[in-house]
Amino acid sequence: MKKSQFEEVKALALAYYRKAGIVLTEEEMRRLEIADFGLDDVYRIGLEIVTYINTSRVCAKEMVLLPGQTCPEHRHVPTAGRAGKEETFRCRYGKVYLYTDTDPGAKQEDVSIPLPPTHVTVFHETVLLPGEQFTIYPETLHWFAAGKEGAVISEFSTTSTDETDQFTDTRIVRAPKIEED
Amino acid sequence: MKKSQFEEVKALALAYYRKAGIVLTEEEMRRLEIADFGLDDVYRIGLEIVTYINTSRVCAKEMVLLPGQTCPEHRHVPTAGRAGKEETFRCRYGKVYLYTDTDPGAKQEDVSIPLPPTHVTVFHETVLLPGEQFTIYPETLHWFAAGKEGAVISEFSTTSTDETDQFTDTRIVRAPKIEED
Repeated sequence: MKKSQFEEVKALALAYYRKAGIVLTEEEMRRLEIADFGLDDVYRIGLEIVTYINTSRVCAKEMVLLPGQTCPEHRHVPTAGRAGKEETFRCRYGKVYLYTDTDPGAKQEDVSIPLPPTHVTVFHETVLLPGEQFTIYPETLHWFAAGKEGAVISEFSTTSTDETDQFTDTRIVRAPKIEED
Repeated sequence: MKKSQFEEVKALALAYYRKAGIVLTEEEMRRLEIADFGLDDVYRIGLEIVTYINTSRVCAKEMVLLPGQTCPEHRHVPTAGRAGKEETFRCRYGKVYLYTDTDPGAKQEDVSIPLPPTHVTVFHETVLLPGEQFTIYPETLHWFAAGKEGAVISEFSTTSTDETDQFTDTRIVRAPKIEED
């Protein structure tokens, strides 16, 4: 991602936190993470993240999805001798379309949003409106996207170990790279 | 607590969630917990709690403290063969006065709010404004209170096992009792 695009996406994400009534410190705003998953298509495949806390036991994040933006399909596998990450997504603002392997019979036609430009294989849809939440247990394949109005999502989870996430789209690189313009 | 008082406190708490921009489902509003810690003095000693999730690994709650209300001093001890609860408090609205044993040299005179009508022994003060947070590791003695404008606090933690909390004030009973008027 170019630095100018990073700054553009950051400004949009910060506006979403404000719209959702989420107060961030200056330090949190500075270290906002923008994940483009190495696909250089951040408005379609990406996620904006503020990590509040990530200890050896607990993690909490506040995430933004811009309108139509998708977090690509992945699963959390056992890491460092512990079970994979367990996470609860709670919608705070907007609308979240979450897809899991909860119902293996679910088909591509069951997806009520345009399919994203990344390889997805699970299609059981759960729609989350503000105040609604869903818990994703370890090793569950999942991907999620915002509706047209974007979304703000709180995540409550066990320790976050993004570096061991297994993505379905083999092109994906999780660690973001920021290049000078 | 009498049922009429329970309903009165509940209505006040729900107004605080709304003021903080926190959206709750109807089901969450119905099961709002009001802890009076058995002291029958809920406006001074109490805490309003919505538990979003509490699994064998992770817990998240949204809590309200009414103006001047105090959650009494306690600590989280090892439970069911696991380390005690680790919790991060994040202020979402209002002002939180948090007291811990972090600095054993802290004295009663260091407390900048009126002392509560419950036995407290730790006085290291941390003030949390919206967006600010503090992590309380297991077995840390702590108590906390809201300023004059009340407070809304998100809690991100390991599994919650309220029933094993050790309170300094020996009069305390954690499980709330609601009586008919």
